[in-house]
Amino acid sequence: MKPLASLEALANSFSKLPGVGIKTAERMAYATLAMKQEDRDEFIKSLSAVGTRIRTCPICGLYTEGETCEICADPTREQTSLCVIASPKDAYSIERTGSFHGLYHVLGGLLSASKGVGVSDIRIDELLSRVKDKKIKEVIIATNPTLDGETTALFIAKLLEGSGVNVTRLGYGLPMGASLDYADSLTLTKALEGRKKI
Amino acid sequence: MKPLASLEALANSFSKLPGVGIKTAERMAYATLAMKQEDRDEFIKSLSAVGTRIRTCPICGLYTEGETCEICADPTREQTSLCVIASPKDAYSIERTGSFHGLYHVLGGLLSASKGVGVSDIRIDELLSRVKDKKIKEVIIATNPTLDGETTALFIAKLLEGSGVNVTRLGYGLPMGASLDYADSLTLTKALEGRKKI
Repeated sequence: MKPLASLEALANSFSKLPGVGIKTAERMAYATLAMKQEDRDEFIKSLSAVGTRIRTCPICGLYTEGETCEICADPTREQTSLCVIASPKDAYSIERTGSFHGLYHVLGGLLSASKGVGVSDIRIDELLSRVKDKKIKEVIIATNPTLDGETTALFIAKLLEGSGVNVTRLGYGLPMGASLDYADSLTLTKALEGRKKI
Repeated sequence: MKPLASLEALANSFSKLPGVGIKTAERMAYATLAMKQEDRDEFIKSLSAVGTRIRTCPICGLYTEGETCEICADPTREQTSLCVIASPKDAYSIERTGSFHGLYHVLGGLLSASKGVGVSDIRIDELLSRVKDKKIKEVIIATNPTLDGETTALFIAKLLEGSGVNVTRLGYGLPMGASLDYADSLTLTKALEGRKKI
């Protein structure tokens, strides 16, 4: 007994999502089949909407359903402070903190020797012209603390050297609520380096 | 900054899948946005196909794209042996073993006091008439070894008592490749009860 072609096709689509292996994808396909028709219709509708209604903001690269994103369109945001992020989703994490009031710049990826991502593959040129044209005073690089994230951060910092822009990187250290017992030594080293006077 | 309405709607749909919490659902919605347009179209197509092309076999309750499922339509299957399963997906696991050559009967659920699933909510009446009309000689109950699965199995066995049908339950014991160290004591008890002469 072969799995039904349409179920297999659906499982194949699910398996393209992050963290979904083929077993999980199959389970999801079956679950979709067991859904109420209206839930499935809702699913189809929102999938199509995502493809047609959402575009990237031409200024910063965040997702938007309008012309420009709501952050670029908001005159009360600090216009001279840029937070550089790898992907649009990161902006939501930062916005949730409520501690950043400037604008964003989405790179659309990270420099990576192993994945063959070079300078022209991500929006670094756009960043440089934006910094120059908009008289940006502060650039906060908020890439992930990974090899590629670090490489990209250092590369950008190097490019902006001597431009008079204040380039910073997110602070590293122990995550709040964590226990020293479970912290890896690299994180602990960073926490020591970043120690603050109390 | 609120998440975009269409992304939020899509995340909401994803969160209805088994094992997908809201965080994972959001991540999936973003991943869908980052997909190639053709992958997304394929996704939408297969989702729609699942809703329109797949029906349940009127005889056994398995999923099919045709009139009856390929197992019910196959005259070489043993017509007097029935394997009772909770959901259509279980048939694929059993078929994969290649050890069962009879027909299936999908209950569409399990009796459950806690979930309020009663006898009339699952296809037990259909099972009884099928057993009687089709002169079934063997019923293998292959529900999960859980409280609800056991209850349902015992209930069906009771109903078929004295009908002359050979009712069996899947054997319990150690899963192949497992280690005694990690087996829970209930499984080990079942393995002892089910010990076989070598």
